[in-house]
Parts: sequence; C-alpha cells; structure tokens
Amino acid sequence: MKVAIAQLNYTIGDFEGNSEKIIQHINKAKTDGADLVVFSELSVTGYYPHDLLEKKEFIKKAEDAVLKIAQNCIGIAAIIGAPKINESDRGKQLFNSAFFLSDGKINSIQNKTLLPTYDIFDEYRHFEPNRNFDVVEYKGEKIAITICEDLWDELPTANEFAKDKLYQTSPMEELSKFDPDFVVNISASPFSYNQEGWRKNVLINKAKKYNTPIFYINQIGAQTELIFDGGSVFIDKNGDIIKELKYFAEDNLVIDTLNIGEKRLQNKVETTEKIHDALVLGIRDYFHKMGFKRATLGLSGGIDSAVTVVLAVRALGAENVRVLLMPSKYSSDHSIEDARVLAENLNIQYEIINIQSVVDKFENELAPLFTGTSTGVTEENIQARARGIYVMAISNKFGHILLNTTNKSECAVGYGTLYGDMNGGIAVLGDVYKMEVFRLARFINKDVEVIPENSIVKPPSAELRPDQKDTDSLPEYKDLDEILFNYIEQNKSPKEITALGFDENEVHRVLRMVNMNEYKRFQMAPVLRISSKAFGFGRKMPLVAKY
Amino acid sequence: MKVAIAQLNYTIGDFEGNSEKIIQHINKAKTDGADLVVFSELSVTGYYPHDLLEKKEFIKKAEDAVLKIAQNCIGIAAIIGAPKINESDRGKQLFNSAFFLSDGKINSIQNKTLLPTYDIFDEYRHFEPNRNFDVVEYKGEKIAITICEDLWDELPTANEFAKDKLYQTSPMEELSKFDPDFVVNISASPFSYNQEGWRKNVLINKAKKYNTPIFYINQIGAQTELIFDGGSVFIDKNGDIIKELKYFAEDNLVIDTLNIGEKRLQNKVETTEKIHDALVLGIRDYFHKMGFKRATLGLSGGIDSAVTVVLAVRALGAENVRVLLMPSKYSSDHSIEDARVLAENLNIQYEIINIQSVVDKFENELAPLFTGTSTGVTEENIQARARGIYVMAISNKFGHILLNTTNKSECAVGYGTLYGDMNGGIAVLGDVYKMEVFRLARFINKDVEVIPENSIVKPPSAELRPDQKDTDSLPEYKDLDEILFNYIEQNKSPKEITALGFDENEVHRVLRMVNMNEYKRFQMAPVLRISSKAFGFGRKMPLVAKY
Repeated sequence: MKVAIAQLNYTIGDFEGNSEKIIQHINKAKTDGADLVVFSELSVTGYYPHDLLEKKEFIKKAEDAVLKIAQNCIGIAAIIGAPKINESDRGKQLFNSAFFLSDGKINSIQNKTLLPTYDIFDEYRHFEPNRNFDVVEYKGEKIAITICEDLWDELPTANEFAKDKLYQTSPMEELSKFDPDFVVNISASPFSYNQEGWRKNVLINKAKKYNTPIFYINQIGAQTELIFDGGSVFIDKNGDIIKELKYFAEDNLVIDTLNIGEKRLQNKVETTEKIHDALVLGIRDYFHKMGFKRATLGLSGGIDSAVTVVLAVRALGAENVRVLLMPSKYSSDHSIEDARVLAENLNIQYEIINIQSVVDKFENELAPLFTGTSTGVTEENIQARARGIYVMAISNKFGHILLNTTNKSECAVGYGTLYGDMNGGIAVLGDVYKMEVFRLARFINKDVEVIPENSIVKPPSAELRPDQKDTDSLPEYKDLDEILFNYIEQNKSPKEITALGFDENEVHRVLRMVNMNEYKRFQMAPVLRISSKAFGFGRKMPLVAKY
Repeated sequence: MKVAIAQLNYTIGDFEGNSEKIIQHINKAKTDGADLVVFSELSVTGYYPHDLLEKKEFIKKAEDAVLKIAQNCIGIAAIIGAPKINESDRGKQLFNSAFFLSDGKINSIQNKTLLPTYDIFDEYRHFEPNRNFDVVEYKGEKIAITICEDLWDELPTANEFAKDKLYQTSPMEELSKFDPDFVVNISASPFSYNQEGWRKNVLINKAKKYNTPIFYINQIGAQTELIFDGGSVFIDKNGDIIKELKYFAEDNLVIDTLNIGEKRLQNKVETTEKIHDALVLGIRDYFHKMGFKRATLGLSGGIDSAVTVVLAVRALGAENVRVLLMPSKYSSDHSIEDARVLAENLNIQYEIINIQSVVDKFENELAPLFTGTSTGVTEENIQARARGIYVMAISNKFGHILLNTTNKSECAVGYGTLYGDMNGGIAVLGDVYKMEVFRLARFINKDVEVIPENSIVKPPSAELRPDQKDTDSLPEYKDLDEILFNYIEQNKSPKEITALGFDENEVHRVLRMVNMNEYKRFQMAPVLRISSKAFGFGRKMPLVAKY
C-alpha cells in the first residue's frame, strides 16, 4: 500500500484554515498516487484546544470540518484527528479520535485509549478513554490505528519516583490480536531537547515487539508554549527507521510498503542548533498565528537580550524588530556600545532613552516616605520597572509585541523584577538555562560575529547598582544550572543534589530561592518550552504552602 | 457509635502543623467520649499539593506523619486523608487515600475511586483510581468510607454540554452490597456561591437512595485561590440534615448515632454575606499561611479599591494595611476626598503621591519617538503603570503585599493595564462581577457608612482621561455582567446569549473582548475563587488560537 505522511502546522480553532490545508494534502497525495494519507492527532482542531473542547459550538464546527474533509476522500483514504462526542450516557463528553475517511464518508473511528495527564498533558480533563479495539480493513490490508500515547504504555521517565507503566491497558496488546499489517500512530508530540532519542526508541521497540511496521505522524509548529518538531518516521518490522521527515518544518512523503526504496534520514544536528530552531519557530508561530507582525524589546548589552533579538530577527525579519536601549547611571559605556553594535549588525531600528531622569523623579517623590531607609532592592526595581514602562509604551503605541528575555536560571531563582524585566508577551529564553544561552550565542556567531564578543565574555550583570555582578547573589552559572537541572528536570531531593558534590548550604539556598519565587513565575509570560520540564502549565506548584 | 467531626484549616506541606492539629483533635475527641474522629480529605498534606506529590521526599514525610498520628489513636479510632504509594507495577504512583487508624496503627486503607479532573480539579494527574471496595468493621458497626467525589458519580452540571454521570463506576453501588451502618465522606469541597444547595442535595439524595446515614467532613480555609467553606454535616438515613457545622470557621462536634439529639443547623445567610466572609478568609489565609502580615494597595476613590481595602482591614487589621492615594491631573477632587475619608474611616495609614510629575517626565522623554501620533491608550497605560511602580515601591521597601483590586467584569473584558493596575500578589475581587461589588459595598455599609456613599453611587471611571466613564467603552455593568455570566459560568454560545434579549453586535463585541484578553489574565495574580468558574487554573484557554 502507498501511504502518504502529511506533517503539517495547524492553528488551534482555525477550522477553515486547518481543513483547507488537510484537503490540499489529500489532493496532493492522490496526485502522488497514494492509497492513504495520514495526518496528525487532533489535526482538525489543532493540538491542544484545552477548554475550548467544553464548548458545544466548537465541537459542532469540528464535526462539520470532518464531514467536509471526508467528502474530499474519493479514490483515496485519509486518517485525521478530531474530537468525537461520546454517545454513552456515562463518562466524559468526548473521545480523542482518529477518523478513517474513504468513499467520501467516515468509514470508521478509533478512539484514543491512553490519555496522558501529566506534565503539559491534560487529556483526561476532556476525554473518555477507549475500551474497544479493532483494525481497519482497507484494500486487503489490516491497519491498526493508534493515537500518540497509545504506544507509550511503557514509558521511561526522567523522574525515578514514577512508574514505567502508567496504564492498566496496552492498546498494542489488544490490536496485535487482529494481526495487523501495519500500525499507524497519529501524534502530537512536543519537542524537548533532553528527550531526544527517547521517542524513537519507544517506536523502535514497539515495531520489534509486535513485528509490525509503524507509520508515526507528528505535527510541527508552536502552540503558545509548546513547540512540535515533526520528525515523522516510517519504521519497518525489524525496528529500522527507513524514512524520516524534516524537523521544525512541514514535510510530506509517500511510502510504498511493498517497495520501501532507499533510506531517507535527516542529518544529525547538535542540541544547541535544535534549540535555536525550536525557539525561532516558537517566536514565528506565536506572532503569525496571533496575527502579529512586529516585536520589541530592551537591549541591555547583555547576552540574554542579545540572543533574544537575534532569534526574533530570524523569526520575523529585521524590518519587524525595533528595540530600545535604556541606560541609567549604572550602565557601563561598553553595554550601550555593545547593544548599539548588535542593533546595527542586525540592521534593526533602535532608539536610546536614558531612564535616569524618571528614576530620579520617582525617588524624589518617594523620598519623604523613605526617610531613614537604606537604598536597595526597591530602588533597583524602580529602574527595571521604568524600563518596563518605556518598552511597553513602544508596544502600546506602535503595536510591537514585547519579547521577554528572562532565562531559565534567573526565572528559577527569581532574579528578575516582576512588572519590570519580567514583562513580555512570550518568554523566549524562559526554558533555556544560562549556560545554554552562552552556547546559543556561540552558535549564532559561528560564521560571523553578530553578537559582540564582549556581550558573551563579560561577567553577567543586571547593572542596577555600581559594579553589580550576578555572582554577588547567585552561584556561578555552571553550578547554579546543574543544581537547578537536578531539582527541576530530575526532581531530585536536596540530599541527592548535595551528594553530587555541592555545598549543602548552597543547595538549600538555591532551592529556597526556587520555592520562594513561585509567585513571580505565576505572573510571568508563557515560556517557549524546549525541555522536559519547563516553567508554566506543565509544572504546577501550590503558591501558598509551607514546604 | 459516637463520631466526632473535626472541620479544620490545614496548610499545604506543613506536616508538622497539620499533624499537631490533628493529634490535638484526636485527644479532644477522646476527652469528649468519641469512638471515632474524622478529618477531611488529604488532611495530612493539605488539599491540593499539586506537583509536590511528585516529590518522593514529600510522600515520605506524609507517610511519617500518618504513622505518628496513628500512634496517638489509642482508645479511639480516626480517619485521616493522605497520599499512599501504589505498590502495583502499573498505574499512577499514588492513591488518594483514607487511613483508618486504631490501636496505635494503620488498621485499614480505602483509596479514592472517582478522581475529579475538571475545572479546578486535577486528581488524575497524580492518583490512580481505586478498584477494590470494602467496609471497615469497628465496634460492631460497618463503616463505608468514601472520599469526596466518590459520592458525586451523579453530578448535575452548570454546562449542559457535559454528562451527569462522569464515571463508569459508582462506589456507593459497590459499598452498599456490604450493607454499611453508615457512610463517612471525607472531603475537600471548595466554596462557590452559585453551587449553594447543590452539594447538600447530592448528599441528601445518596442518604435516601441507600437508606444510610452520612457523615460529610469538609475542610475550611483558603489555599491560594481556593476557599473551602466547611459546612460539614450529618444526614440521617431519611436524607434529613440533622447536624451542620460552621461555615468559614473551624468547628467540631460529636454525634452519637444512637442518640442523635436536637437538630443543630447554621443560620441562613445571604449570598453577599457569604462572598464577603469567603474573601476575608481568602485574604487572611493567603497572608498568614505565607507568613505575611501587611498589605498595601492604591485607593482611587472608586468602589473596587474601597471594597478591597475594607476586606483587607477585616482580614488583617487596620494596623497592617497601608495605602497610597495617587491622583493625576485627571483625578476629580471628590475621588481623592472619597479615598481620604475611607482611609480615615478605617483608621489606616495613607499617603498621597501625585503621579503627574513622573507621567509628564515619561511623556517628555518619549515625545521625540511619538511625534505625529495621537494621545490614547499608551498615555493612559503610562499613568496606570506609574501608579504600579509607586505602590510596588511601598511593597518592596516595607514588605507590604500588594492587593489587586480588579473585578471579574474588568478582568473578563481586559479593562485594565497589565503591569499597572493589574499588579498584585492576590486578586481579591477577580472572581466578583461589578454588580456584586456594589452589593458588597452596600453590605459593608449596612450599619455604618464605612465606604463614602459617593464612591458607590458615582458612575465608574478609570480617570485616565478627561471625563472618562467605563460606559464609554463597555456596556452598562448590569448587561455586561449578565452576558459574561452566561458566557463564562454557563458556557453559552453567542447565539444563545443573544436569544436572552441582548443586541447581537454587542454580544459579539463583549465576547471578542473576553477572548482577546486571555493573554492579560495569563499574567494576572491568583484570583480568590467564589464562583463555579473563576479565571485561573480552573479555566484553561489556549492563548494562541483562532476562534
């Protein structure tokens, strides 16, 4: 059988746009001689619509779209993903379903069995699990249709305090009883740099275990925080990856199961390049899917805003990025110069506003109330917040969306000013530890010095008081990042982290900072997710707690 | 049997404090002659610990606390709630369990079957559902132990697009086979003013259906957004409520099943008074459980900040509340006067800072960039953000936590400035529609005029430009609130809302404002929840979507 994989970028709730794209690819697959074309999980609605799924109107539109798409399946079959109403009088209102379309109609439906409800996944909130299994017979072959997590019944976890087998049922155990010719897995599996290989291994193991080829179809594109990386594959029954589609780009391919042909694999790419590509896609889709064009941010001369602005230019074009340089009396000359050089390297519009006069005015007005107090964090925050006002004024006046430049290390320990430098529509580096920000800068500069060398090599500083350095209040980033990674991504206890060779007091001090700053992260912009545990809706900590 | 109900206020993760409180009440119940004392769901950890449940260390501490509490059950039995590790090699790592303690040890354990995973509930994220049923035999009686949702297998929903029967299993159907003498339901059921009666009806119907008395034990106290109202009850087998514990306060009571005695019911209280009490408790627990004492906010002379400051004074005491009055050139004289009178009525510290000089300075500095543009929202936002800086400066300098005063109507349509008046540690009125804010003001003033009459009767205005009124950009609040309630709480479609008698264009305009402002609410402070659908983690809408 000739099976086409359509790896596409969908917009949540854009039934018209998504359907049109699907129908175009049905027609293309037909032209290419395919018998069947397969799209990814919830392709009709976009993944994941969250509580839009609770709106009757939304589901009605999804149903209409499925029927319209079905009408286009003449002389070709298609598998698409959409929600389906649970007709039983019990259970959740919906199933997360794969629709098998042929002869202009819905031929059969397979519902998702294993509903991931952990980290960023929340599917049991809306969906009832499937309990009935069957294969689809089409052109003399038996197709086992599974939906994403359905193949993930054995799940290696980063956190040792969790089970490998999260579910009571194994859909493949059930489906293998029908002796399928091949498995189709329609998926919506987000990128995370430290789960590389893991996803492929799950598929390889299933192909081997059940001695059955697998078509795995992922989506690409960003949906606010989540970045889907594509990389759809066809794996033969021996567990060999024979075909691999692009990463971070739409792609499609027809595979003839009777005549597999040459291997087609993607070039191996370093982690930092993947993160770079993921973030560029994350910015681009945030803007384009919202109908925004232009971005702004404050350039400090430091490395975080430097990397952010380069990613923004790559995502949106230099003509759509406009920055402010906002020195104070504590800004070093080279900071302004580094920021200026960078803006000119990128050929973007920039203006300089010195914040000192408004900061002085705030301090004068507050002086009668602050008599007898000493200068400190309050005054530092006033500077950061004055900058926040200026850059938001540009945003409001000209319609540029503010990009937040906070990195994951700062964000973790609360080294940032709420309503100041924590402002922004999307946090570009909020899931990127500082050491990785350095690697991104080096990667960006690999051919030409875009980011001034000085921004990369100078000791990081917020420049909110004379001669301030980040290391005045934080450990060296090399150590800080390792402590944080073990706590946040690996869920290790203070004792286990100390055992890695860190000072016990330092570990406790860092973890206390993480715990105490939940309230800041609660009010932060959505964070582009590139790791297995990002700040945001995949990590829910109680704010009011004694722990 | 003599059963004591212990309706207490727990702090999440405070194993020491919670255990101590539980042990005290075990001893008290023993002194009072009880055979059994019952505490609420997850009483040992506090409800709900969210992803703290993913930490091995956290679960270990819970286990230790359960054992310690068990040792205190000599000559009395107790039922407490805590997580328990799932020993099977499959499924989620934990159960949400009720521990029956007697003779100094854990006598038996009943796990929760129905795991609410909708709205603010997220239990399937962490817990495996129970599949085994049994009763506990104690002193010759058979006790059916259920945990909260276990009795909610038939669930009337506000949203017609959802099923009454959300689950495949009915724990009471299973447990009734053992012919129990009575049912215990340990619960953590949050307050919502528009689900009054609903909770009692579920219990009454179960008692009647199974012809069995029910002890229902709720917790009280606020956990960030969620406010638990208590109101534990004993219902006889005829479905009559015989005993009812206090609302919004700790309480305890011994009930002799062989000698029920007089009815003890709470006085009926109007909705507005309940909301008032809920918000005061919400503020108080936010501060006390975090170890904070003092609050600040900006008093504008308007009704939202007026109601907020009164609630804060009632929660924290006048000596712990300090406000800023921050007029601009657009502030009317009476606004400042109204704010001043209110502050003096409340006997709280207040200072006046005119924001005009910093606002002028910002505008001067931006003038070269803004040449040729007309004055508008940008300039209004600068005012709101300048106020934000001043009030945060007070917060940072003196350790007062900023209270946010945004009401639910504003919050819904995005009528507020991000990083300006949307600042704050907790949003006191974020789940209170404007019309209810008026009722709260009237309730506060019922005996003495605390809030100046003028703040209540004048047309609401943000006072960010000359003669501005809220109705310049919004419908009358009476209409706005009804449209919003039907959309947010009732999940009605635009068509259904129009059919209630509203202008179609007006409905579409309002709903578009709601949908377009998800991004503002995403970055907002946690909202004290008093309704069945509050903004916050109980309502998850995708930010990037075309719908």
